Amino acid sequence: MTKEFFSVTPVEKVFEYISGFSATGVEKTDLLYAGGRILAEAVVSDIDLPGFDRSTMDGYAVRASDTFGASESNPAYLDICGSIEMGQKPDVTVSPGKAARIATGGMLPDGADAVMMIEHTSEIDNTTIEVYRRVAPGTHVIQKDEDIPINTRLLKPGRRLRPQETGIIAAMGKAFIHVYKKPVIGIISTGDELVSADSVPETGCIRDINTYTLSSAIHLCGGVPRSYGIVEDQFDPLFAAARKAADESDMVILSGGSSVGTRDLTIEVIEALAGSKILVHGLPVRPGKPTILAEAGGKSIWGLPGHVASAMVIFEVFVKPCIRHIGGEVGFSGKNYAVPATLTRNLSSAQGRIDYVRVRIVEKQGTCFAEPILGPSGLIRTMLDADGLIKIGMNSEGLLKGAEVLVMPFQY
Amino acid sequence: MTKEFFSVTPVEKVFEYISGFSATGVEKTDLLYAGGRILAEAVVSDIDLPGFDRSTMDGYAVRASDTFGASESNPAYLDICGSIEMGQKPDVTVSPGKAARIATGGMLPDGADAVMMIEHTSEIDNTTIEVYRRVAPGTHVIQKDEDIPINTRLLKPGRRLRPQETGIIAAMGKAFIHVYKKPVIGIISTGDELVSADSVPETGCIRDINTYTLSSAIHLCGGVPRSYGIVEDQFDPLFAAARKAADESDMVILSGGSSVGTRDLTIEVIEALAGSKILVHGLPVRPGKPTILAEAGGKSIWGLPGHVASAMVIFEVFVKPCIRHIGGEVGFSGKNYAVPATLTRNLSSAQGRIDYVRVRIVEKQGTCFAEPILGPSGLIRTMLDADGLIKIGMNSEGLLKGAEVLVMPFQY
Repeated sequence: MTKEFFSVTPVEKVFEYISGFSATGVEKTDLLYAGGRILAEAVVSDIDLPGFDRSTMDGYAVRASDTFGASESNPAYLDICGSIEMGQKPDVTVSPGKAARIATGGMLPDGADAVMMIEHTSEIDNTTIEVYRRVAPGTHVIQKDEDIPINTRLLKPGRRLRPQETGIIAAMGKAFIHVYKKPVIGIISTGDELVSADSVPETGCIRDINTYTLSSAIHLCGGVPRSYGIVEDQFDPLFAAARKAADESDMVILSGGSSVGTRDLTIEVIEALAGSKILVHGLPVRPGKPTILAEAGGKSIWGLPGHVASAMVIFEVFVKPCIRHIGGEVGFSGKNYAVPATLTRNLSSAQGRIDYVRVRIVEKQGTCFAEPILGPSGLIRTMLDADGLIKIGMNSEGLLKGAEVLVMPFQY
Repeated sequence: MTKEFFSVTPVEKVFEYISGFSATGVEKTDLLYAGGRILAEAVVSDIDLPGFDRSTMDGYAVRASDTFGASESNPAYLDICGSIEMGQKPDVTVSPGKAARIATGGMLPDGADAVMMIEHTSEIDNTTIEVYRRVAPGTHVIQKDEDIPINTRLLKPGRRLRPQETGIIAAMGKAFIHVYKKPVIGIISTGDELVSADSVPETGCIRDINTYTLSSAIHLCGGVPRSYGIVEDQFDPLFAAARKAADESDMVILSGGSSVGTRDLTIEVIEALAGSKILVHGLPVRPGKPTILAEAGGKSIWGLPGHVASAMVIFEVFVKPCIRHIGGEVGFSGKNYAVPATLTRNLSSAQGRIDYVRVRIVEKQGTCFAEPILGPSGLIRTMLDADGLIKIGMNSEGLLKGAEVLVMPFQY
């Protein structure tokens, strides 16, 4: 009675499907709270930044040529022609032989082309300074437009806003900005053996873990989790929950028992959703082979394995990029850098399958080691102990102890 | 008139001061929304997980000894004694020569000690199966307590909750959990030249950027930013804003012009706060030398340089760890891994000073390169183009092109 449960989809094809889903809508947000959001408009500078030549030091605005030849032993003498007020257009002009007091951030007056640091001067009296150094034109000055010239294409839509991006947007005069709406992700846990976290399980039952791991993971990658609770393994209640979740969310994640019966039921329910199409039914990966991806009404519907570690690995590798994609992010601009490490034991794999192995990252004397955390994917402990994943490719039969690997760290 | 503006504090001392500030209070939160929060209680398992022997496959619960010697050519024959219902305590016992139908996640019945995969069996009729493989005791079974035995110390306070930690907490039956309150961070921008992001600056003025970069950075490292607006460079209004912010927040960040006058005013204002003590007035770092750290009423008060890149670098290196610390995090458990890279140009530094150099990370043919982004720290562009920082230590006079460096990536 050996049975081919499903034919698998190449992982490249999965990412193709993912890139085909549309981004959520756009909303306007207060720039003060825009950190981490995904920009939904282009930002082009409509001003020069700064809008004027600015001093970067406390000192005197001077004509550089007046300082040529000045030294400790042979100081130049300049007349003080006034003071620059912060935030004001200077009302003085620096003519040859003159200098104007200026503080860091002050606007350079007409005539001046450099700033002499106060440390390199001495005030002889209220009207005259000695200058001990020479400065070149432009010294200690940020030129008008030196930071950002007008009409610079600064940011494209799809960029994740770090602090610096919000700063540049503020400099452009936008206190509100268009960002993509955070995608709302419906979560349904299925399984007759599941009870809620606040219940005491009867013998044979266990508490629902996936709703919590998925909810946190969704939140931490920029989505809004919405739990539709634990649903029994029956068509009617599961279909009702899936339809409601699909109506109300931008994506639905069902995670169920890993039995064939539950998988078949999940497929049946997804197929019954209006306009649905099964895209993926099985992946050549371990853990997570029984993963389902479908489309219904333009929304992605994921069926994740019930095993807690399998569900988390598939989330990390496939669902997270999908959430980021529908959240408007382009090229996953929140860069995740892989951690180079040395493998601490042999790992076997099989050709034709990608293995995602949970590893702990241990640093010893400046070298990073990747220690595989072995154990069935039903054990949450394997994820608790892990810092990230390493990938063993389709064409590999395994990795040897001592191999240099790249760990994809769990970054939240 | 050369003047020693301030004596600098060793950076180790700064981290000592930081570790002396107390954590914020504790609150109870719905575990569904606890991802990224900092745990404020210890979690010890009060149950075995799972609470019973569970099948990890669809198949038959068997006595392993009944399968010894079985093979394709010489199958064993077992009588079907019943089916295990998911989530139910089995009502059958598997005696010698018997087998019970079981699905993934089902509870192993008494008498059985292994699961035979359905693929390795064939049902002859409703009462008898052929078995083509042998299994050892424990095969395809997660033993009771194999994931987490009772009384395991799972999580300590101070741990940042990833998805897997919220999952394990759910498994322990806690749908609500104690976490540290997110620290509220007051932000004050000072400077007569500053106007708000939604204003059009007069000549000589620029828009306030720091409120936005700081606000986003605070949010992204787990704090709650609260802006107290732009305050002019005058004692009374600045003192009033600082006092209000110190009363209402867990930390206050003033960022001001970098002129000596503004710095002196900031110090004067901080000294006037009730019970205040200046801890740091100047750091041996670049950029960010004029950094101030004070304590007032047990809260940290930071004075950051006005230059936008300086303020961001100091935030990244010192203020962020401080926010994480008062937010209850121990050992900054949200691991940030450094990125090994090859430096693309010579960098000079000076002994007695730590340089934090902004770099872009560029990957070429599998090698990471760190390209320094040079330019005055008043330019936000230098941060916009950067992916992280490299550190040139106190005792170094610089780094040569081709040096292997560790980039601290901006991870938000």
